[in-house]
Amino acid sequence: MRIAIDAMGGDYAPQEIVKGAIEGAKREGIGIILVGQEDTIQKEMMRYDVSGLPIRVRNASEVILDGEPPIVALRQKPDASISVATQLVKRGEADAVISMGPTGTVMVSAMVTLGTLEGIKRPTAGGELLGFVPDTVIFDLGANVDCNPRELLSFAVIGCVVAKKMLHIANPTVALLSNGAEEGKGNHLVKGAYQLFKKSNLNFIGNVEGNDIPAGKANVVICDGFTGNVLIKFCEGLSRSIIERLKVTLDKRLSKTDIEAICEDLFTLTNIADVRGGGLVYGINGLVWIGHGRSKASQVAKSIRQVKLAVEANLVESLKLELTKIQELGGGV
Amino acid sequence: MRIAIDAMGGDYAPQEIVKGAIEGAKREGIGIILVGQEDTIQKEMMRYDVSGLPIRVRNASEVILDGEPPIVALRQKPDASISVATQLVKRGEADAVISMGPTGTVMVSAMVTLGTLEGIKRPTAGGELLGFVPDTVIFDLGANVDCNPRELLSFAVIGCVVAKKMLHIANPTVALLSNGAEEGKGNHLVKGAYQLFKKSNLNFIGNVEGNDIPAGKANVVICDGFTGNVLIKFCEGLSRSIIERLKVTLDKRLSKTDIEAICEDLFTLTNIADVRGGGLVYGINGLVWIGHGRSKASQVAKSIRQVKLAVEANLVESLKLELTKIQELGGGV
Repeated sequence: MRIAIDAMGGDYAPQEIVKGAIEGAKREGIGIILVGQEDTIQKEMMRYDVSGLPIRVRNASEVILDGEPPIVALRQKPDASISVATQLVKRGEADAVISMGPTGTVMVSAMVTLGTLEGIKRPTAGGELLGFVPDTVIFDLGANVDCNPRELLSFAVIGCVVAKKMLHIANPTVALLSNGAEEGKGNHLVKGAYQLFKKSNLNFIGNVEGNDIPAGKANVVICDGFTGNVLIKFCEGLSRSIIERLKVTLDKRLSKTDIEAICEDLFTLTNIADVRGGGLVYGINGLVWIGHGRSKASQVAKSIRQVKLAVEANLVESLKLELTKIQELGGGV
Repeated sequence: MRIAIDAMGGDYAPQEIVKGAIEGAKREGIGIILVGQEDTIQKEMMRYDVSGLPIRVRNASEVILDGEPPIVALRQKPDASISVATQLVKRGEADAVISMGPTGTVMVSAMVTLGTLEGIKRPTAGGELLGFVPDTVIFDLGANVDCNPRELLSFAVIGCVVAKKMLHIANPTVALLSNGAEEGKGNHLVKGAYQLFKKSNLNFIGNVEGNDIPAGKANVVICDGFTGNVLIKFCEGLSRSIIERLKVTLDKRLSKTDIEAICEDLFTLTNIADVRGGGLVYGINGLVWIGHGRSKASQVAKSIRQVKLAVEANLVESLKLELTKIQELGGGV
């Protein structure tokens, strides 16, 4: 297995990216191709003992910076590290690509170079939202703001593959996020999707409400990316407020170390994407991980771990297969 | 001031309603009209010392039960307690009505008997969401699932009146809940509303994101009722999960009493509507409080307090006035 890493993308590139890549290569025992300005990367690598590690460098002379409009930047800089890294996946020289560069640029590069899977117009982002319910994934978390029922169905298919392949749930239950449990509850979008989901081959259990997410009522919770984005950010914000409150309330009743551990525990349980440092983009004809710009070495190494699991799970091939099944059933997405 | 209370509505009616009404009358020093089956109510009242209290009973022979379809039930039972109580407001014999009966029935009764304010098609529900940010109200929290930009504008007008009159904020800031702060971010609805809000006489500060709600970035946060409903229920569920986790984590490190106090504090901060036992319906030509069916006496008394404040604030007249201003500005709702 070989993973291409955009060594130039991210707030702490190339230092932390190189460091994390080496850490990941050691820990996971997989091949890493660091893509970017060769001299700079080699100089960074000289700071570590990489003898025997399956890491090589692939030169890419240009770098796309935060703030550059993705489409223009990708056209003007054909030798940008993110483009070169993604092309390695396209040509089969790498099994996946990881970048901590600007989200929009990584996304456009993936769509242009690798294309989307049959039946998918735009990729989706999602996954676990809360550590309280490790068997629940939620899609879409912000990539698709205005959706139609068929798009929600495609998120559900993707969510099921993720639940099966990554969380090892044999027959994941699927639900629509709504404002009431009964059929007939929901906005126009949810009502339309309900009918499509009912006819599909999904293990559809109907609508769930907001409180059913932390209760783990379904393995795959589906919503439009507007609702999902508001939810994930509200979750972050609310947990932050609660943690701040606890710091005050617990002060002088417990040791500083204990308070920190309790707060850290709650933070981890409510900020999965943040702790993990990013996530896969789904619906692309290839494995692409978009990491946070602020990722440091430890998060780069964690990303490598996640991506390795996705490669081993044969995620993209499974997605292709399941999307075909849905289309055969007449629920084309 | 006189408040009509539907003595027959709610899971613990009439016992807890009567008890709470007496408590409220004593504490707030305002007139209460208990509406329902006279004999039953009188029998309940005999259990308390009500001498000198400004409480009287108004007979209504029928009761609408949970599960009865509102429109049919209201037609078939013209002498239902909720109808009679609402008519007291219509005729000016009461300043407001409180019911813990079925939400749909109370809502329909209010719309049919009192009507909506000029420019309002359907009433809205909302208010404070988090005790962390007592100067923030959010509308709509579930009454209007599919909305258009003009409806969001009417929620904003209502939210501003609530912020001014109930929270005493002189010039409340208004924001649209969106998936990004910049203009141009949002789903179709938010983008459309953004343009209307910009042209209005509101103190519009643009979009806010989910994490900005607990941060208190705006006084009045506006969203469609689908998003609002998902959010308020997610908030309840997440806080419940966090509290359960804390009970385990804090066990044996702190006393049971301390743990309970900490959990109670967090519950109160994250479940305002629940703790308060219900909320006002806005956009009705009269003051209507819909309480939770499970309300007990203490919540009935709390409802009386809230309703008294709303009567004193002259809420309905202020709403009428502000809605006219928006219409004069060409932003008719």
